[in-house]
Amino acid sequence: MREVAILGAEMTKFGIYDKTNVELFSEAGLGAIEKSNIEPDKIEALFFGNCMGDFEEGQLHMASFAHSAIGLKKSAPALRFESACATATVAIRNAALLVGAGVYDIVLAGGSERANAMGTPLATRTFAMASHALYETPLGITFPGVFGMATHMYSEKYNIPLDELKRHMAEVAVKNHFHGVNNPKAHLRKEITVEKVLSGMMVADPLQLLDCCPFSDGSAAVVIADAKTAKDLIKKPVYIAGMGQAASGPLYYQKDITRVKSREISIKKAYKEAGITPSDIDVCELHDCFTIAEIFALEGFGFYEFGKGYDAATKGETRFGGKVVVNPSGGLKSKGHPIGATGAAQVTEIAEQLREESGPRQVEGAKIGLVDTLGGDFGTVCNIILRR
Amino acid sequence: MREVAILGAEMTKFGIYDKTNVELFSEAGLGAIEKSNIEPDKIEALFFGNCMGDFEEGQLHMASFAHSAIGLKKSAPALRFESACATATVAIRNAALLVGAGVYDIVLAGGSERANAMGTPLATRTFAMASHALYETPLGITFPGVFGMATHMYSEKYNIPLDELKRHMAEVAVKNHFHGVNNPKAHLRKEITVEKVLSGMMVADPLQLLDCCPFSDGSAAVVIADAKTAKDLIKKPVYIAGMGQAASGPLYYQKDITRVKSREISIKKAYKEAGITPSDIDVCELHDCFTIAEIFALEGFGFYEFGKGYDAATKGETRFGGKVVVNPSGGLKSKGHPIGATGAAQVTEIAEQLREESGPRQVEGAKIGLVDTLGGDFGTVCNIILRR
Repeated sequence: MREVAILGAEMTKFGIYDKTNVELFSEAGLGAIEKSNIEPDKIEALFFGNCMGDFEEGQLHMASFAHSAIGLKKSAPALRFESACATATVAIRNAALLVGAGVYDIVLAGGSERANAMGTPLATRTFAMASHALYETPLGITFPGVFGMATHMYSEKYNIPLDELKRHMAEVAVKNHFHGVNNPKAHLRKEITVEKVLSGMMVADPLQLLDCCPFSDGSAAVVIADAKTAKDLIKKPVYIAGMGQAASGPLYYQKDITRVKSREISIKKAYKEAGITPSDIDVCELHDCFTIAEIFALEGFGFYEFGKGYDAATKGETRFGGKVVVNPSGGLKSKGHPIGATGAAQVTEIAEQLREESGPRQVEGAKIGLVDTLGGDFGTVCNIILRR
Repeated sequence: MREVAILGAEMTKFGIYDKTNVELFSEAGLGAIEKSNIEPDKIEALFFGNCMGDFEEGQLHMASFAHSAIGLKKSAPALRFESACATATVAIRNAALLVGAGVYDIVLAGGSERANAMGTPLATRTFAMASHALYETPLGITFPGVFGMATHMYSEKYNIPLDELKRHMAEVAVKNHFHGVNNPKAHLRKEITVEKVLSGMMVADPLQLLDCCPFSDGSAAVVIADAKTAKDLIKKPVYIAGMGQAASGPLYYQKDITRVKSREISIKKAYKEAGITPSDIDVCELHDCFTIAEIFALEGFGFYEFGKGYDAATKGETRFGGKVVVNPSGGLKSKGHPIGATGAAQVTEIAEQLREESGPRQVEGAKIGLVDTLGGDFGTVCNIILRR
């Protein structure tokens, strides 16, 4: 396999839009293409992610329309992927595999979603379709509900009083909002306090409003090429060192929802491919859809032992200047979560960090970065490790 | 690239079911796995196609659930694809590319749809979401409408009186139903006559009811492996000789809707890879969503000059014993059209034909077969050429 690189990477500001997914993705895609110093007709395939364009705007078959809106050549295939919240990461991974294999030299990959457009109550119900429609949805299970249950189980399993755990979880939200203030693309660009988190509306016990990421509209895209092509085109390619993806089925298959089995398999493969250990990671964009989810991820990566990662944010270990900077973009919590675009935005952030283009939120000397995206209630995890 | 083969291939009967897509796909997938003489845990990835599980049954993220229902190992990634009617063909092509590249040795690919479940009027409107939601759907465009317009244009362009053209189109329907009678998996397993077609309810002028394929429920799946693995496992692998896929954007980008530009690009690539010309094809499963669509495809493949393929069925050239047998399975017209499963069923039919396992509908001595699937109103075409 050839070495594969990320060239240009671009995202729209995440937030609220009155534009279609194809319009949003065109903005991100053309931005990524421009930053790659190429014209759209050099792109050999489009790997496009979207979860629910049919519900959001009555649009299926979106890849073909994005293809034409961006002005790709007709011989370039356009594909749509959907793996719940991991959608764009899966699209990027599969594009990278085919570039590595020599099938394509230059591919555009990413995703788009108008998750905000339908409003939070309806979005909560409709995106719950990513859980099992026969055995979970009829019971009223939504994602806040799943992560609420998982929080209680974590508290019990590791004997951490719920009030104490909730303060540490609040520190995750505070940290990610603190990071997000320096990100002009963030949806919720404001600092918050532990007190504010703990006084928020109850969403799904014990998760309160600010434990939850927002539904956002937005797109992100990256250009992927083989290392040789990349070096000829731009000054600072960022290389894919390792990748992983695993599936673990519906929630009722999970033995322990305080651990995400698909992540443990995916990250192990990514570390092995990259030839690194957890301590080699300098910066990480992980799937903090809820504050507890960040804690699960830190433990899943091996940054902390299971049951020991809950106070990482409180201790400042995952903040700027900490041992590994987690979610410098603000994460899903502050930057926002347009479902099918999230993974591509995570890759964009890590690529910019490794190029030292992150301005006031630059993680000094970052050489190796990790992307982590979780789809559904633990059903899919996809990881990508990037290096300078 | 390594040579790639189709091992086991299986489809459910197409028709009407009170089962979920995951349940249907499990039936097809396990059948394909069993015919490959392997256990589910040998599958290294699942490439799953579905168009609208969210509308059909409130289910997203279906690949991960199909993965677990079939009992694949957790390290096997599961991905969902959507490219309108070309969904499963795109999934199979991308799986084959990665097997060819050596990323995976054995992959399960295919698709599932419950297109019948929502009833024809609603299905017609919802699947119209595969046309452009901003510039086409608001005008009331549905797929029968698009192909109705294209029929008028073909009649005008080539100066073929509409009544005459309609009789030739009816012969396409009669031929495909004649073939489908011998297919126990077909949804509409009955012979029809030209008179019956021409006396049918008007759907979208000049297309009448029997010019249109039915919305069906069903699934199909194939196991894909490198040639060496395939030869070790089964007696009669069928090899992928060439593939193509192209995108051509929304309807309003098409200069001439009597020709499908994306097909012309896709088939050219497939022929080139296979090192063959149109006359080498012995048997073909093509996208006859409407009778006129079969005529467009025959011309797009180069079987006939443009404007000359309209009377192929009337002359018996595409029927059993003709120069190329087109849609021996009954095609979409008789076998049925579960959108996201169709391409995998086409591959299944061609693989069985090349193995001489098609019983009473066996095309004698078939050595090279073509699969053709059209997505949306001309936005995507994917072709796969198989050989013994």
